[in-house]
Amino acid sequence: MIEAEMASVSREVGAFIDSMLARKDTLFKSAYHLPSHGGKRMRPYLVVKSCEAVGGDRGLAIAPAAAVELLHNFTLVHDDIMDNDTMRRGVPTVHVLWGTPTAILAGDLLFAEAFEAILRSKLDDRRARAAASVLSYATVKLSIGQFQDMSFEERDEITEVEYLEMISGKTAALFQACAEIGAIVGGGGEDRVAKLGAYGWNLGMAFQIFDDYLGITSNEEELGKPVGNDLREGKKTLIVIRGMQTRSRDIIKSLLGNKNATQAQLASLITSLDEDGVLGYVREKALGYVEEAKRALSCLPDSEPKSSLTQLVEFAVMRRK
Amino acid sequence: MIEAEMASVSREVGAFIDSMLARKDTLFKSAYHLPSHGGKRMRPYLVVKSCEAVGGDRGLAIAPAAAVELLHNFTLVHDDIMDNDTMRRGVPTVHVLWGTPTAILAGDLLFAEAFEAILRSKLDDRRARAAASVLSYATVKLSIGQFQDMSFEERDEITEVEYLEMISGKTAALFQACAEIGAIVGGGGEDRVAKLGAYGWNLGMAFQIFDDYLGITSNEEELGKPVGNDLREGKKTLIVIRGMQTRSRDIIKSLLGNKNATQAQLASLITSLDEDGVLGYVREKALGYVEEAKRALSCLPDSEPKSSLTQLVEFAVMRRK
Repeated sequence: MIEAEMASVSREVGAFIDSMLARKDTLFKSAYHLPSHGGKRMRPYLVVKSCEAVGGDRGLAIAPAAAVELLHNFTLVHDDIMDNDTMRRGVPTVHVLWGTPTAILAGDLLFAEAFEAILRSKLDDRRARAAASVLSYATVKLSIGQFQDMSFEERDEITEVEYLEMISGKTAALFQACAEIGAIVGGGGEDRVAKLGAYGWNLGMAFQIFDDYLGITSNEEELGKPVGNDLREGKKTLIVIRGMQTRSRDIIKSLLGNKNATQAQLASLITSLDEDGVLGYVREKALGYVEEAKRALSCLPDSEPKSSLTQLVEFAVMRRK
Repeated sequence: MIEAEMASVSREVGAFIDSMLARKDTLFKSAYHLPSHGGKRMRPYLVVKSCEAVGGDRGLAIAPAAAVELLHNFTLVHDDIMDNDTMRRGVPTVHVLWGTPTAILAGDLLFAEAFEAILRSKLDDRRARAAASVLSYATVKLSIGQFQDMSFEERDEITEVEYLEMISGKTAALFQACAEIGAIVGGGGEDRVAKLGAYGWNLGMAFQIFDDYLGITSNEEELGKPVGNDLREGKKTLIVIRGMQTRSRDIIKSLLGNKNATQAQLASLITSLDEDGVLGYVREKALGYVEEAKRALSCLPDSEPKSSLTQLVEFAVMRRK
């Protein structure tokens, strides 16, 4: 049910993005590559539903919703270069197809178009400025988060607190921004903007923890990229951090950053992590943020959009078992 | 005289940038690297003087002036990665010092901080939004211009028209944006914003043509990087494009894209270009834009800031012989 609603927002936002990027020259083609391959588009959905949840006009939310999706895609294009990732959404990444220089520029163009989408929309000046400010501030936090994530790869031990701080910047900051932007363009007061922001942040934390979890427990078809890539690249996810404190430590050490780790080795790691309670711990951690996200929504009167936001939380962590 | 005034604006803008970026962690250090090594800061000066030229409050112009400088530095950091340039402003480039992934992020952070500077300033909502829109639109044009510039390297012959279109995006668009932003924050009406924009664009065209000219006729100390780098990298500047239509064609072909071109070979090229009238042609072309820039200023009443803008044009093309 939520999937159908998300697909509907995705189509509207997709048409908006098409109108900005669907051009024949190479730079625009490279910038359009990732957005044209969809993704779940949870972030635009979050903007639209947050707007509706404060009683705002859905029509005003489409341009800002496209903006956050463009911004998200900008970060993916640049992150894929930095992380040497070759596949995303089931297709080769931008730098693989067009080379690193063009991919850097494609990301820059997506970033600029994100601001264009908000600043040239029919929003009044106050809302346009406020929404754009939220977006630029989130980008500062995203950059810091991505930098922390990269620096973790060079360190042996990362604490759970450091990990949570990193995903707060790298992921939750943009979810928070989406909900705040939706509330702002919908005309919500300061209190509702803050509450929806808290909802978005907790949703983002839950989503990222669960995403890391899926990264080793899911399958390639569902992920759109090989299972265990994070582990092979030496990413210190919460699973790794927690697992290092259990009997799974040795098997993690042998696989972390090991480009040649096999599917069989990954399977035995998952069994070990499950037996040691690591998978359960990580799931519980994600569910804690789920509860906080729902609590933040309690300030809103019951409504269809509020119910959608509640379902979105479930969707973020229950997508696949 | 204009140098002293520019230095004064540069100090104010520098202090503003310090307050945003002077932090100890590595990402901010890498983002702060280029801005902390100054440069001429013509663009912030252009913002401040355009604001004053329409009778605006100089104090309102400092934050947007810092924004354009941050944006300019963002493009330099990314361009240096794409162009494999190792030196700028007499110091190693960001990707040389911190590696490409950090340099990509440092650029992204500078981009975000440029919008932060405008959107969180004390400008009213209308002006903040309009100024930010000008900046995001300029960034789209900058990206297209940089892409064209890179694609020229893979082609044998570039026309003068194509070259001018490229520098219109890569350089003149930001000069135009600076003058427009200054006029907007200064409270100028639509006509003056457009006229100052035309001034800025022509200034930018003149500046870039002269910059390419200096790139082979100046010396390393003044440039902050080796003379002839553009030629060694195969950049098709107006000098190259024009020179290819003269007897200098053979010597250009032997040096263009030749990483091992010596200073003696460059010296003989310069003599040849001078004898063939290429250097004179390029200087005249730059001076044509200088005249257009001055003409665009004629709508403004005589004033100290108008006189500064006139001097800025002279400065841009007369900096060094």
